[in-house]
Amino acid sequence: MRSTWTVLAFVAATAAGCATPATRETPMTLPAADADAIRAAAAAYVTAMRDTAYEQWADMYTADALLLPPNMPPVQGREAMIAMVRSFPPVTAFDLRPIEIEGRGDLAYAYGRFTMTFSMPGGAAAPDSGKYIEIWRKQSDGGWKIARDMFNSDIPMTP
Amino acid sequence: MRSTWTVLAFVAATAAGCATPATRETPMTLPAADADAIRAAAAAYVTAMRDTAYEQWADMYTADALLLPPNMPPVQGREAMIAMVRSFPPVTAFDLRPIEIEGRGDLAYAYGRFTMTFSMPGGAAAPDSGKYIEIWRKQSDGGWKIARDMFNSDIPMTP
Repeated sequence: MRSTWTVLAFVAATAAGCATPATRETPMTLPAADADAIRAAAAAYVTAMRDTAYEQWADMYTADALLLPPNMPPVQGREAMIAMVRSFPPVTAFDLRPIEIEGRGDLAYAYGRFTMTFSMPGGAAAPDSGKYIEIWRKQSDGGWKIARDMFNSDIPMTP
Repeated sequence: MRSTWTVLAFVAATAAGCATPATRETPMTLPAADADAIRAAAAAYVTAMRDTAYEQWADMYTADALLLPPNMPPVQGREAMIAMVRSFPPVTAFDLRPIEIEGRGDLAYAYGRFTMTFSMPGGAAAPDSGKYIEIWRKQSDGGWKIARDMFNSDIPMTP
């Protein structure tokens, strides 16, 4: 939609004798509608995780996304990401709290906090909490997807 | 919101004949000069780390920067960041390899890999390697500083 408008503006400006630079006019903040879309996607992410709906979960990432978890190499590609999340012990609690969503144009980042609890073999609950940074990219349909996703725990390693 | 901006720019252009839009003209990629500046800053970061020049190291972060290391809560503020890095065992090797530097306007991210070796009490070398995502912000003087810095290790935790 936006490029249609930009093209229209370009055509109009050219017709009027005005020069238009080969750039897009990007506000120096992320429009509220885009921040809201990312916030809504984060809520859907939480639901997919809680429902172990890993196909829907994987749909929230770009085709070239990199998942960057602690204590393992980067995970790239839909199948590898789904295999990784399925290899986890059962997740009995999961939540995300976005603290900051900021961007320019079609590129944004989110910084926030996560909590999750695994059910370990034998039944013990293993709670974890920490922080994440996600890089989001606006798609051609106007939706947003995660392209890079790094997180780590706040909890000290046991020696 | 997006179309509002574009419409405003269009109206302004029409009204003024040849107008400057009420937005900045941001190329939909990071200009090479900005990517080069971030790459040069990353090289200076490596030098500061190797020299244990932690005041200079801290200068590379914005005043409100968040350092987001694994297995501890977020570290905010220059003094807290310097105290944290001083609390590490001596670092005998350190390197960063930026893989991706992407941004729009005054906001960018870098994704890359790090290697570092600590000298543990008793003298054993503890090598680590992993990945990082940094959020960079262009300053009013044209330089770039790190505002958010998260990293984690590729190495599995020992059970």
